[in-house]
Amino acid sequence: MSEVSKGLSGIVVGDTAISTVGKAGVGLTYRGYDIHDLSEYTQFEEVAYLLIYGKLPNKIELAAYLKKLQTLRELPHNLKSVLEKIPQNTHPMDVLRTGISMLGTLEPETTGYTSAAIANRLLAITPGILLYWYHFQKQQNRIEIQTDEIYLANHFLHLLTGHTPKKEFAKTMNVSLILYAEHEFNASTFAARITTSTLADFYSAIVSGIGTLRGPLHGGANEAAMALISQFKTPLAAAQGVKKMLENKEKIMGFGHRVYRSCDPRSDVIKNYSQQLSKEAIDGDLFLISEQIEKIMRDEKNLFPNLDFYSATAYHFCGIPTDFFTPIFVMARLAGWSAHILEQRSDNRLIRPDANYIGLTPQAFIPLEQRI
Amino acid sequence: MSEVSKGLSGIVVGDTAISTVGKAGVGLTYRGYDIHDLSEYTQFEEVAYLLIYGKLPNKIELAAYLKKLQTLRELPHNLKSVLEKIPQNTHPMDVLRTGISMLGTLEPETTGYTSAAIANRLLAITPGILLYWYHFQKQQNRIEIQTDEIYLANHFLHLLTGHTPKKEFAKTMNVSLILYAEHEFNASTFAARITTSTLADFYSAIVSGIGTLRGPLHGGANEAAMALISQFKTPLAAAQGVKKMLENKEKIMGFGHRVYRSCDPRSDVIKNYSQQLSKEAIDGDLFLISEQIEKIMRDEKNLFPNLDFYSATAYHFCGIPTDFFTPIFVMARLAGWSAHILEQRSDNRLIRPDANYIGLTPQAFIPLEQRI
Repeated sequence: MSEVSKGLSGIVVGDTAISTVGKAGVGLTYRGYDIHDLSEYTQFEEVAYLLIYGKLPNKIELAAYLKKLQTLRELPHNLKSVLEKIPQNTHPMDVLRTGISMLGTLEPETTGYTSAAIANRLLAITPGILLYWYHFQKQQNRIEIQTDEIYLANHFLHLLTGHTPKKEFAKTMNVSLILYAEHEFNASTFAARITTSTLADFYSAIVSGIGTLRGPLHGGANEAAMALISQFKTPLAAAQGVKKMLENKEKIMGFGHRVYRSCDPRSDVIKNYSQQLSKEAIDGDLFLISEQIEKIMRDEKNLFPNLDFYSATAYHFCGIPTDFFTPIFVMARLAGWSAHILEQRSDNRLIRPDANYIGLTPQAFIPLEQRI
Repeated sequence: MSEVSKGLSGIVVGDTAISTVGKAGVGLTYRGYDIHDLSEYTQFEEVAYLLIYGKLPNKIELAAYLKKLQTLRELPHNLKSVLEKIPQNTHPMDVLRTGISMLGTLEPETTGYTSAAIANRLLAITPGILLYWYHFQKQQNRIEIQTDEIYLANHFLHLLTGHTPKKEFAKTMNVSLILYAEHEFNASTFAARITTSTLADFYSAIVSGIGTLRGPLHGGANEAAMALISQFKTPLAAAQGVKKMLENKEKIMGFGHRVYRSCDPRSDVIKNYSQQLSKEAIDGDLFLISEQIEKIMRDEKNLFPNLDFYSATAYHFCGIPTDFFTPIFVMARLAGWSAHILEQRSDNRLIRPDANYIGLTPQAFIPLEQRI
């Protein structure tokens, strides 16, 4: 038995062929392709295909895949009934956790319905789960789930607003989905792999991923970043406020990373989109406020922004409610989780570590009557 | 970066003061108390209290705790509505995963409603979630959830059959809940701790635990053991059948353990109950068949039965449907998971390991039009 560092920091717990996070000289690649190329030149669906099937689709494959995903968007009647019972003030991550768990009872995994088929269904249906619930709870509106949008990014924005999205919003959403699609053995993916390692079903693994992503030390960080940024009216106020928070040893979300040491290669990509959108936004100053916070964090703590930080304002400028930020992360990461479930299944061993016991030495049993 | 063995076998990934699994000279203790004393002399609720609050309750504390749990059994109306939408042929583990996720939307964790309060609610309500769904789907019967039973073991059996359980069935169920209550960093507990480590809510961590427990390499093993045992009509047929399975390199569930090397200290306890119950059971021969399988596995593979193996027939003789075996494991392990969530929160660090990249080297991006 050997003891390893707390939180498994820096400890290699398995192999993966899916992505390279912070590997020297490579940065972030999905199946060997650089994240900068993918986010600039592809649609999210190409990346999902790449992650799940292991290769970039050609034109014919992509067309077929897009068509297939379009047919998989509809919600089963009983899933809608369940979503209608989830209270209005529920965090949308709990809606997704419950909705996808429910879907697993309506369309369970079987030998004839498994893996990639379920992954594709989840990619296609998740925007509808979120937004059916949202519009029903907000104004008792049972929305139509089908749209004429070809791409998931556009479909999501269309369901949110009820109309065809602006081109630059759809582009930002598409890029964001690509950037969030996959990230090696992060906590939610690792949880999904552990669930998979007991030979549990596909949905159980995804549900573990969603619940784990929910926390502010993981997916919830983009929502926490928005809460931070939006509390300041000017860059000066942000500089003063963040300095004060640092003095008080408060945690500033959206900075640094467990694996990356000098920068998050995804941050500049989304920062650029946030900046472009800020020019047309009524509260575009939030971008300048973000930049000021970035500067303070570099100067004072030598910390760099991670993907979550500028994603916050990018989403905000697209008109997306803050508590949808982490659910969007789910829509993207479903691709990565699915790839990891498939990979874990292809060469499985139960993930069951040991613990170091620090508790009481053996105690003599005390009968109930004699206990004080 | 250092590389560790696959499945984290034998790797210490953190500290715990809750239980000792396979520690030399100690065997299995919960908070220092030997599992043999606890299973012989206590009620499951004393053990749940011990795990969650860190001490065995005295008479007054236990009386108050039992009373409190009795008041926490009722199902919210909207949870019942959701359970009624879950199809009849659903695996009960998926019912629990979905039902408890739904409960998390109806009674979310807040600063004023957290940790032990939610743990107690889950302990009290879970039998009702399972059996409300079961009776509704079986015969459209909306059962009353309250019973006059003081103990959870009795309450569960009462809800299952509609009447006060036989004393020996209730005793067996109580002992089984104690034996299954806690087991250090097993896969489901580790998954729950990872979910907790992102600062996700209590329900998300429990839901990860349920999904992970579901697999046949973990909680699902007791159901798999029953399927194995019940396929044989005689001990002789079992001996021949299991030998043949071993020749075909088929996996026999319910034997061996990742951590225990020579025996599972819980096995003899539940074997004794199975044996006692077999004497009155119409299909009591299943016990003799089990013993024969145990003998073959020792002779041929030098493997010992784990808790799951004799739990299968013990439950069966109590009249419990096979696909409730793993859900009973949940009812018990809720106590252990809760203790681990509390422990993880008390000294948290994000659990985020590294991976060894074995995929493609960097690939030049290929535009869609040029892909083959």
